[in-house]
Amino acid sequence: MDNTLLDTLRGIVGPAGLLAGDELRARQKPQQLHAYALVRPASTAEVSAVLAACHAAGVAVVPQGGLTGLVHGADAQAHEVILSLERMNRLEPVDITQRVLVAEAGVILEQAQAAAEAAGLLFPVDLGARGSATLGGMVATNAGGNSVIRYGMMRNNVHGLEVVLADGTVLSSMNQLLKNNSGYDLKHLFIGSEGTLGVVTRVVLRLCEAPAGRCTALLALSDFDAVGKLLRRLDHAMAGTLSAFEVMWQDFYQVVTTPPAQARPPLPQDHAFYVLVEASGSSTDQADRFAQILSDAMEHGLVADATIAQSERECQALWALRDDVRQLGRFGPLAAYDISLRLADTATYVETVRTSIQARWPDAQLRAFGHLGDGNVHVAVHVPDMNTADRAELDGLVYTPLQALNGAVSAEHGIGIEKKAWLGLSRTPAELALMLLLKQSLDPKGVLNPGRVVDSRL
Amino acid sequence: MDNTLLDTLRGIVGPAGLLAGDELRARQKPQQLHAYALVRPASTAEVSAVLAACHAAGVAVVPQGGLTGLVHGADAQAHEVILSLERMNRLEPVDITQRVLVAEAGVILEQAQAAAEAAGLLFPVDLGARGSATLGGMVATNAGGNSVIRYGMMRNNVHGLEVVLADGTVLSSMNQLLKNNSGYDLKHLFIGSEGTLGVVTRVVLRLCEAPAGRCTALLALSDFDAVGKLLRRLDHAMAGTLSAFEVMWQDFYQVVTTPPAQARPPLPQDHAFYVLVEASGSSTDQADRFAQILSDAMEHGLVADATIAQSERECQALWALRDDVRQLGRFGPLAAYDISLRLADTATYVETVRTSIQARWPDAQLRAFGHLGDGNVHVAVHVPDMNTADRAELDGLVYTPLQALNGAVSAEHGIGIEKKAWLGLSRTPAELALMLLLKQSLDPKGVLNPGRVVDSRL
Repeated sequence: MDNTLLDTLRGIVGPAGLLAGDELRARQKPQQLHAYALVRPASTAEVSAVLAACHAAGVAVVPQGGLTGLVHGADAQAHEVILSLERMNRLEPVDITQRVLVAEAGVILEQAQAAAEAAGLLFPVDLGARGSATLGGMVATNAGGNSVIRYGMMRNNVHGLEVVLADGTVLSSMNQLLKNNSGYDLKHLFIGSEGTLGVVTRVVLRLCEAPAGRCTALLALSDFDAVGKLLRRLDHAMAGTLSAFEVMWQDFYQVVTTPPAQARPPLPQDHAFYVLVEASGSSTDQADRFAQILSDAMEHGLVADATIAQSERECQALWALRDDVRQLGRFGPLAAYDISLRLADTATYVETVRTSIQARWPDAQLRAFGHLGDGNVHVAVHVPDMNTADRAELDGLVYTPLQALNGAVSAEHGIGIEKKAWLGLSRTPAELALMLLLKQSLDPKGVLNPGRVVDSRL
Repeated sequence: MDNTLLDTLRGIVGPAGLLAGDELRARQKPQQLHAYALVRPASTAEVSAVLAACHAAGVAVVPQGGLTGLVHGADAQAHEVILSLERMNRLEPVDITQRVLVAEAGVILEQAQAAAEAAGLLFPVDLGARGSATLGGMVATNAGGNSVIRYGMMRNNVHGLEVVLADGTVLSSMNQLLKNNSGYDLKHLFIGSEGTLGVVTRVVLRLCEAPAGRCTALLALSDFDAVGKLLRRLDHAMAGTLSAFEVMWQDFYQVVTTPPAQARPPLPQDHAFYVLVEASGSSTDQADRFAQILSDAMEHGLVADATIAQSERECQALWALRDDVRQLGRFGPLAAYDISLRLADTATYVETVRTSIQARWPDAQLRAFGHLGDGNVHVAVHVPDMNTADRAELDGLVYTPLQALNGAVSAEHGIGIEKKAWLGLSRTPAELALMLLLKQSLDPKGVLNPGRVVDSRL
């Protein structure tokens, strides 16, 4: 690669917009260390010009948002140019009648949430990385998070997009309407395609009414069969307000409620499963109904024990248990998996994987938890002194059983580089061929985030 | 066209599976009268073989479902082969834990709804043509209907699809999971593409919990500003249970409550707007809360008058008003439009169009109503003795103002043939170019429902 492209890019974004060499390495972000250069365009026109130049030069471009991805989809290599959306962080005023928020792709989730809240509305997609994750990255990865059961994933909360294609073409598809069957709904091509088909530059977010309050409880269950029955019972009884159904296996619960974890167990530690349940509603009598619904579930034998948060502080304490995932790391480095499968298969799957891993590594530890209301289980595995070959073998033990169960190797984190070798377990050859066709049609030179999700060639 | 292809097709589907000539014309469905032949495959394998044969012969194929579409997207021409999914009407048993229903594309909506109901669940997409519309056609057109405000359109209620591509390739993408970020989400390519990119053969429907009951009211409002404010107020207060927000302009309400219409006006006819509101919930105190919320809205000056249905019979009577659209036809033939635009622009748009139409045809009548909770307004226009040139001129008066408003020429009916000339008002040149690229990539010979939605060539 010569300096001609660098000069061209510098001419597009200005000296402050381009980092290379020592200047780039000084940023010390592992995803950026090996890149050829990093460009920081300040407008869609600049993004377009940058992509056109790289396309003409046949140089690969890696779009980067908040760098909170978990599958190495935004890690750059030495011959690649990073396209960071960090300077495109403008928010337009919230339109409170239409309930939409138009924002540039580099806006941080937390800022979008705050803008919605200041307008008396809610942007409901929420996740732990809210202080770093950008809207563009969340669109590109179809982010999920904590409230999917009620509001859906990013896909369900975006009306329109502006995307720059591989060759620099600006695709403006900034729909602000809830219903629009005027031709193909193109935004779905880009949502969840992890930057391989286009670079998201602007988004139209769908906002919704903010619930006036929430009710939260921690429930203990004695078997997994009760988990599925409880989910249906609560979803029915809470009629559109059920906003979280998070399950913790016993050994997860024990770790997050035992020192050095800060929390003490709000319920005894001897139950098989724990469920964090939340309903978000508005009416003043909501707390009474919530308690009644849980009481009914106990009477029906689905719930063995329960505690209802009596204050916002208690509510936060229950969520802190669920979110104290770093406790799992205190035994050593973790391999973290993000699986989706049918609820009825989940408990058996987890025990099968646990057995096979401990047969291979007797000191291995596996803990499971996750958004079971969405069918999404997170599996965290610690294998002592794990090397690269061990990790590949571990991946095989976790992923291979999913094929027979029609499970998904990624529920919400995406494929990136980390899971690419396993994608074929979850998708048919015809599906993989169509993905390749789309990639080749939209990016025939293979310059957009190449090698992530799918290869550009068979 | 010679008889070789007919023989080939007959060989695939058997003698009972192929209709041509007089046999076909005897069916007397206007969408089929001009076709070369009609094939009725009984399995995905047969669909695949039929498409492969037509693809090899370069013969156009028109997929047909329940023939309830409103934009002539399934009308066949003399040189085209109709592919009817009518024999593919098998339903698998409902999976009540996973809450999914797997069905072949030819299953009628009403049958799928009944199967869900028998399992204690709900398939929430509902529309007037429920006795004829097929699931495959509803997927192909991304059907909307009466409950979009709460449950979304068909797109939001389908987990997976099986699709046969133009060359006969079977794409099995029968995902049953709520969350699945394992590669591109291919189903969205086909949902809403009106049979131009693939033929849907099987679907995985997402089912949900059935509400235990519903509360329905008719409200009178004195100005359109109150419509937007009321929508937000009710959506907030009803916290996830608001399931309908249907608006009728005064002149629509007058027609459906004046003889020869059967209904008498439940509220006086002198208000500017009428809103049919419904909440679907479960708790026993729902009716009290519903009444309280409406009472609060009256106190805040948003609602001028109101009547709450006190029984299921009264509830049905209120819906019958809204659904008595055929009253509009008693003045003569109608042109019916299906527009989507920003709520804040809607009243002005309707009056602008009314004025321009009546300036051109002083005896023309325009009545507006629709799913305003979704931003979707239906406009029905009667122009005395309208000829083809008049209709084209009328289309222009209705559609042209949408361009400046970023409105959509189709909210839910789709583009088909009827609206194709107007698609460019709602979509950018870059969007149209990408649609064409997708069409050419997935159907390079242009044999799948050609000329509908987009042309196969520029």
